[in-house]
Amino acid sequence: MAYKTDIEIAREASKLPIQEIGAKLGIGTDDLLPFGHDKAKVSQSFIDSVQDRKDGKLVLVTAINPTPAGEGKTTTTVGLGDGLNRIGKNACVCIREASLGPNFGMKGGAAGGGYAQIVPMEDMNLHFTGDFHAITSAHSLLSAMIDNHIYWGNDLEIDVRRVVWRRVVDMNDRALRQITASLGGVANGFPREAGFDITVASEVMAILCLARNLSDLQERLGNMIVAYRRDRTPVYCRDIKADGAMTVLLKDAMQPNLVQTLENNPAFVHGGPFANIAHGCNSVMATTTALKLADFVVTEAGFGADLGAEKFLNIKCRKAGLAPDCVVLVATVRAMKMNGGIAKADLGAENVDAVNAGCPNLGRHISNLKSFGVPVVVAINHFVTDTDAEVQAVKDYVAAQGSEAIVSQHWEFGSKGSEALATRVAEIAESGASQFAPLYGDEMPLFEKIETVAKRIYRADEVLADQKIRDQLRLWEEQGYGNLPVCMAKTQYSFSTDPNLRGAPTGHSVPVREVRLSAGAGFVVVVCGEIMTMPGLPRVPSAENIHLNEAGQIEGLF
Amino acid sequence: MAYKTDIEIAREASKLPIQEIGAKLGIGTDDLLPFGHDKAKVSQSFIDSVQDRKDGKLVLVTAINPTPAGEGKTTTTVGLGDGLNRIGKNACVCIREASLGPNFGMKGGAAGGGYAQIVPMEDMNLHFTGDFHAITSAHSLLSAMIDNHIYWGNDLEIDVRRVVWRRVVDMNDRALRQITASLGGVANGFPREAGFDITVASEVMAILCLARNLSDLQERLGNMIVAYRRDRTPVYCRDIKADGAMTVLLKDAMQPNLVQTLENNPAFVHGGPFANIAHGCNSVMATTTALKLADFVVTEAGFGADLGAEKFLNIKCRKAGLAPDCVVLVATVRAMKMNGGIAKADLGAENVDAVNAGCPNLGRHISNLKSFGVPVVVAINHFVTDTDAEVQAVKDYVAAQGSEAIVSQHWEFGSKGSEALATRVAEIAESGASQFAPLYGDEMPLFEKIETVAKRIYRADEVLADQKIRDQLRLWEEQGYGNLPVCMAKTQYSFSTDPNLRGAPTGHSVPVREVRLSAGAGFVVVVCGEIMTMPGLPRVPSAENIHLNEAGQIEGLF
Repeated sequence: MAYKTDIEIAREASKLPIQEIGAKLGIGTDDLLPFGHDKAKVSQSFIDSVQDRKDGKLVLVTAINPTPAGEGKTTTTVGLGDGLNRIGKNACVCIREASLGPNFGMKGGAAGGGYAQIVPMEDMNLHFTGDFHAITSAHSLLSAMIDNHIYWGNDLEIDVRRVVWRRVVDMNDRALRQITASLGGVANGFPREAGFDITVASEVMAILCLARNLSDLQERLGNMIVAYRRDRTPVYCRDIKADGAMTVLLKDAMQPNLVQTLENNPAFVHGGPFANIAHGCNSVMATTTALKLADFVVTEAGFGADLGAEKFLNIKCRKAGLAPDCVVLVATVRAMKMNGGIAKADLGAENVDAVNAGCPNLGRHISNLKSFGVPVVVAINHFVTDTDAEVQAVKDYVAAQGSEAIVSQHWEFGSKGSEALATRVAEIAESGASQFAPLYGDEMPLFEKIETVAKRIYRADEVLADQKIRDQLRLWEEQGYGNLPVCMAKTQYSFSTDPNLRGAPTGHSVPVREVRLSAGAGFVVVVCGEIMTMPGLPRVPSAENIHLNEAGQIEGLF
Repeated sequence: MAYKTDIEIAREASKLPIQEIGAKLGIGTDDLLPFGHDKAKVSQSFIDSVQDRKDGKLVLVTAINPTPAGEGKTTTTVGLGDGLNRIGKNACVCIREASLGPNFGMKGGAAGGGYAQIVPMEDMNLHFTGDFHAITSAHSLLSAMIDNHIYWGNDLEIDVRRVVWRRVVDMNDRALRQITASLGGVANGFPREAGFDITVASEVMAILCLARNLSDLQERLGNMIVAYRRDRTPVYCRDIKADGAMTVLLKDAMQPNLVQTLENNPAFVHGGPFANIAHGCNSVMATTTALKLADFVVTEAGFGADLGAEKFLNIKCRKAGLAPDCVVLVATVRAMKMNGGIAKADLGAENVDAVNAGCPNLGRHISNLKSFGVPVVVAINHFVTDTDAEVQAVKDYVAAQGSEAIVSQHWEFGSKGSEALATRVAEIAESGASQFAPLYGDEMPLFEKIETVAKRIYRADEVLADQKIRDQLRLWEEQGYGNLPVCMAKTQYSFSTDPNLRGAPTGHSVPVREVRLSAGAGFVVVVCGEIMTMPGLPRVPSAENIHLNEAGQIEGLF
């Protein structure tokens, strides 16, 4: 049997006008700001008007450590949302926006897959509603104003060697990673080293996704540290007086974007911070708005549960006052086999032993998530090649952990395939069983927060850090930043910092290479490996094959 | 009597839903892609469907050389559009989009003024429908692909010293004018000198505004020269294989943006190329689409008639097969007085002698425009301080030139004030009197084209150019570019290259400092003075005062 590709299925979608999707959430036509016929932003005044309503149930979808086999986290998020709607719950999906630049290197991604997708796919991989362009503009304005301040006399006494605010562009452009700027003489300013990151790595992105409203946004933007003086005192965005104009540039970008699933159920696609140097979740604005409008909100976090769910729970939930009512942990038989030592090429053959050998990765994530006080359901995202014996092996393993695993076939059948999962998730969420608490309190010293995550989530024996790093953390504590959560940046492929160490490793150490203060976003980034903030293009970029066909359709993007 | 500011008037506008504006042009709801409730793009399929229709009448609004007194060209364009609608003609206005970056340096501009404006003003000064962001993205993709090509082995043998494709950002950022890129070692490529222009200076912008359709767009993008080899042969965008993906990024940006005047008449605001290194008119797509939908299309060209109208007629009309049916030359009593030697501070007092002394500037523009075979009407854009005697002096002068001048009071009264102008313009346009022909044929050698413009429009005695420049022009002729029009880049403040020489100077020379080939846009840029392609911010940028007020309105932008 031949299966259709994601883009083929997406192009066959019969989309409803976005006004009809909005109506499902009780949003009137006047409060939807349309972008074409299939995308809309929700007006700020409408969002303000629903703040007194009771929140719906919040469901977090996370996953085991990703493998090249693919785990299908977004697909399951969408499928579960459709499943909940199918069983009569009013549910809304909340996921992140895609970054434009990387689509011209490797092929762009669908939002979901098979019969569990969000559309319009092309738009979501291109300009969408312009949010990322607005972030690039706001970031670029601050960049220009910093050098302009120095140019006109540098009243703030910025040490030009210590400008920490890099520039951004939403493109994979390695040539801009490290540059010398302001060359060419007096009219162009004081030459200094500088560089560009990709837009999604901007602290402005992280802030947009954590801000509760426009005044909170401006406050956080103002708090960003852009440079230091010779005496090492920080210079803030507020000192440059860029925070007001940046807020104006981000005004519309703060409003959540409404689109739809293939089954015409509502989905907010909003914000897309990095899952390493930032927290990797969709916006607080979208999630909190959806909770006011739907009975169930299904959202996801970046990477595997050790990174993504940890940050969702310790950073996003803490800051936004959110508490998940159920966590769905996505696993696949194929990924279990890879965790059990099987190469990707050999995944086709039934291998129950390999499934069993890989399951401890799943088991540790279950145990970790339970330590946050949240109920956990494992979703086995079904592949058509999975055998009954393999599926049963996963179910048995999960049952032995005191949890339960449910097969979901949303990829192949849409909501019909996710009905069982949706039913169980709804039961758990409505039971009120969740007793969520973050892993550590605000008052815990920064280094202890790092140790807490490393030991209790990664199950490392120790955290290694130079005295210089420990001193830096102490200095920030003295400056009043000790109450911030930590944002771990390590490989997503392993509980450890070694990407090749699959399964459930123990006895490892977590070396901290660098710490960075995101004073506006409100977290301390803990870098435990190589972090790429400006990707390059491959030898043959996908852009070379992207074009419009005779029918005006986009070819080569997927 | 106190007059309201432009922004006060704009905020009081009672806008109609954009679907109702579209209906006035016969565009159905499905063919309008809305951006909020007051902006929309016109679908490509609708544009395709009207290509067989007869064209409406085309009216070009141009002006005398600009002075600090202001001439009100856009205001008159909008006022005339409203006036034509008032007298029962179905008229549409076509103007350019504003660039985002400069609004954070100096205050942003209205589209028109007084009671002759286009709204929504705030959006048009910010992200609008994202066209400029799309241009920045397309330009940036090509930039990244060029350096990526060099990084992976440089099969095209690009001379890294001769990469002529600069980067762009839509921000006034002087620190990026001249940089060294690809620093930091092997992973980041081969260090080379580079730099950024502001987005509106991109050749991609010029191309977007000249392309007739999407396939023409891709063809022109492919034709752009991005670098040279050691043997000086050009490397094209097509060789980098970026043209297809750039077209995909620009697909939506190619569709004209529909908005409305204060009087709820349709206006296309689309494209915004520089008026010095490019041709400075709104897009061909918007103009040609409007001509299929309206009986009258009123459009404008950048700067004064010596630069803007010359390029509109010799470049845009030539390439798009357009022919204006009437040209409106905007003048003000105040600008006549400044041309007559009066300082701005002294404009308040009646001074008929100064008006008479300044009129030769107006007279020369009339004569120049007539040399294109087009009928010319002078619009005296009325200021409330103008005296009857001053106005009469302009009328008498124009009558003596065998033309006619009509007072228009659209700023103060909207279409009621422009009815007389509209009536006369409609008569002339409908009379079929226009016998438009460009000033020179395609086959004329490039240097002779420069001389033709310099002598017949600027009334210079001679063109001065080094042998190197003449050799360059000859080389381009040998390479097949001899049939292109020339795009003059000189000061807009004078017929001469000296910005302080007002009135109607004679006996001057036009020194050509540099020539540049825009092989994609399809013209040879002739630089006759300082050209700034990346502005800086002032000591106190307007951004410092831009913010949202408590009501969520934008303050400080205007």
